Amino acid sequence: MVPKINIDQLAIVLVDNNNEFLSEEGKLYPLVEPMTEGGAIVGRMNLLLASARQRNVPVFHLPLSFSSDYQEMGTNPYGINATIKNAGALRKGTWGAQVAYTIDTANDTVIAGKSTTCAFASTNLNEELRNRGVRQIILGGLLSNICIESTMRTAYGYGFEVFALTNCSAALSQEAHENAVENNWPMFSYPIDVEKLVSSLRKTRWFA
Amino acid sequence: MVPKINIDQLAIVLVDNNNEFLSEEGKLYPLVEPMTEGGAIVGRMNLLLASARQRNVPVFHLPLSFSSDYQEMGTNPYGINATIKNAGALRKGTWGAQVAYTIDTANDTVIAGKSTTCAFASTNLNEELRNRGVRQIILGGLLSNICIESTMRTAYGYGFEVFALTNCSAALSQEAHENAVENNWPMFSYPIDVEKLVSSLRKTRWFA
Amino acid sequence: MVPKINIDQLAIVLVDNNNEFLSEEGKLYPLVEPMTEGGAIVGRMNLLLASARQRNVPVFHLPLSFSSDYQEMGTNPYGINATIKNAGALRKGTWGAQVAYTIDTANDTVIAGKSTTCAFASTNLNEELRNRGVRQIILGGLLSNICIESTMRTAYGYGFEVFALTNCSAALSQEAHENAVENNWPMFSYPIDVEKLVSSLRKTRWFA
Amino acid sequence: MVPKINIDQLAIVLVDNNNEFLSEEGKLYPLVEPMTEGGAIVGRMNLLLASARQRNVPVFHLPLSFSSDYQEMGTNPYGINATIKNAGALRKGTWGAQVAYTIDTANDTVIAGKSTTCAFASTNLNEELRNRGVRQIILGGLLSNICIESTMRTAYGYGFEVFALTNCSAALSQEAHENAVENNWPMFSYPIDVEKLVSSLRKTRWFA
Repeated sequence: MVPKINIDQLAIVLVDNNNEFLSEEGKLYPLVEPMTEGGAIVGRMNLLLASARQRNVPVFHLPLSFSSDYQEMGTNPYGINATIKNAGALRKGTWGAQVAYTIDTANDTVIAGKSTTCAFASTNLNEELRNRGVRQIILGGLLSNICIESTMRTAYGYGFEVFALTNCSAALSQEAHENAVENNWPMFSYPIDVEKLVSSLRKTRWFA
Repeated sequence: MVPKINIDQLAIVLVDNNNEFLSEEGKLYPLVEPMTEGGAIVGRMNLLLASARQRNVPVFHLPLSFSSDYQEMGTNPYGINATIKNAGALRKGTWGAQVAYTIDTANDTVIAGKSTTCAFASTNLNEELRNRGVRQIILGGLLSNICIESTMRTAYGYGFEVFALTNCSAALSQEAHENAVENNWPMFSYPIDVEKLVSSLRKTRWFA
Repeated sequence: MVPKINIDQLAIVLVDNNNEFLSEEGKLYPLVEPMTEGGAIVGRMNLLLASARQRNVPVFHLPLSFSSDYQEMGTNPYGINATIKNAGALRKGTWGAQVAYTIDTANDTVIAGKSTTCAFASTNLNEELRNRGVRQIILGGLLSNICIESTMRTAYGYGFEVFALTNCSAALSQEAHENAVENNWPMFSYPIDVEKLVSSLRKTRWFA
Repeated sequence: MVPKINIDQLAIVLVDNNNEFLSEEGKLYPLVEPMTEGGAIVGRMNLLLASARQRNVPVFHLPLSFSSDYQEMGTNPYGINATIKNAGALRKGTWGAQVAYTIDTANDTVIAGKSTTCAFASTNLNEELRNRGVRQIILGGLLSNICIESTMRTAYGYGFEVFALTNCSAALSQEAHENAVENNWPMFSYPIDVEKLVSSLRKTRWFA
């Protein structure tokens, strides 16, 4: 059973919503382009953010970045890390390492330093959330089966209730996305689409 | 391409190999019984451990446990945590919270305190590994798609090379196990069966 | 200005209150004996714990322990770690590694796995506190200038309000204790003696 | 006994060497000015860095920064955090939050995200060090008794050997600096002056 949203204990966490993934000139854009559908995902993120601002829900953006030698990846990168390194993508200080320019972060907290799949591992995200009394997280971004899921697993382990956005996220293929959303996410979160969540946000104690 | 094993930088990490999951009297044994095949998994773990001891590869066991009120799970447990709590399983200080009695841990390190899906999150596992110069991890235990995969994701993010044991692990169903092994593990590890790994361990710099 | 105690956001954290330090047969007892004054500190801890139980304040004990080869200390232990290793003290599974038998922990949470000076570093203490909504910590135990202060510094950095018990703690000398309490603790906590704190606990919203 | 420096397992870690503390226009410069002696500390840092580059010792800078609402500090900041917040200092994205412009970081790694007294707590510093095989840390920066000492305590707890620079660091007063260096640092590090360390760096396996 999906728990009720408690607006006072809620935060939005968007991971890896970098230019590199979400803007046309991004080095990793071609990899996710089939799924991000010409900006549809950014559009939905902005819908969510607008709604969050109306309700004063704190928003955290955690772009991914690496040092120029990608040393954070260890000696022999493999998997998605190898892909990123081979593309020369997401280097600290570059445009690609920033949150996509199409996303308005003016009133939000951008947390620097995410260099692993899990958004908690190398940042102060946990303390940012805890010190605001957050117990429920709305989670979106990229990639559905990698950074979102790793962050979701840690959040679950820490005792947060996670609402995972099914259409505000993307993987390298529709198949990989669906496998994550259908087989893995339900173990660690309440999957939900952004329209339903925004509708819920609007109603939650809105007229109370 | 699977990297070579470097016996000097290697460790074995077994997660959630508790009595509760692996011994017939365990409260969660019925859930994994179809997959653990009457002790076959324990047999393979012991094969691996015997081989590791011959080569002086350090072994870490990380059993799962919770306080009697399961407060580590947060306010409203869901997913596998709800299953554990409802079963009254894995309480600290009980027999079920210990490493399965059929596994010989005499020469190994048992790390207490694992209370989340990821074996790094609430323990000193990272420092134990790092202070021994470990860069490669052989990973097994339970459940394939939950604690093993969460631990694998963190290890990957930290820069370790992970060898994930395909038949020294189990999930709540064969289908869930296979989905993890086939679709998720290859992103964060080199999946391998225990017989192949043991054979590799025997040969690696054996006659050097 | 000392903040008001909020009984609903409060927890007690006692570090390194092991038999090894606090019981006469303990291997490290001779080192702290001049300061623990024949059990006076244990007496004050029990006074505090009795008071906490009356108010349903959660209590966490974090005894220190190491594996039998003290590998957690790295390659070349120095400082207090060298002292502990040379004494063969605090080995996991031994009596000395347990909370002192003179302290009643029946209703409390004993968190295993503390192997560093800071009680947060290798345990789930942060999540235990956060999931209970804790924002204020009453901190005591041993040693004033080592584990208490390291834990205090982390708690401060995480955003907790810390009340540090000046006479429910000890160092290897009165001088070292006083230096910590007077020069360091006030930067990261509100130092207070246990009698004053207990009196405050009794009054806080007692008749509300 | 001070251990030998092993150039292959060595790294330099400088904490809180921000413009805000070390540049004349910095908001916190007046607080440390009596101790930083018109740039003498920056001069010594640059001496160290030049020497490190000759020997290919990796260097990490960890400037301190906070979000504009200082929420990382929790609800009621006190101590040094209150000082920082009241001064409106160290806001993310501002000049003051950057490494002092007088320090050349061109070949080094600048790690963003330090928002607590300990440089490990909210960054990937541990993985950066571990993945390079680092076991010895040369530690300097500001403040001697706060961020340096908190970072030192964690490094000690993690099993690193720490060389703490006695004259490449500063506190809010000479007295506070000396108290830290004389009474606290020796418990968790090998205090050393920068000239001696640089001399040691030059000789270490230089002609081997």
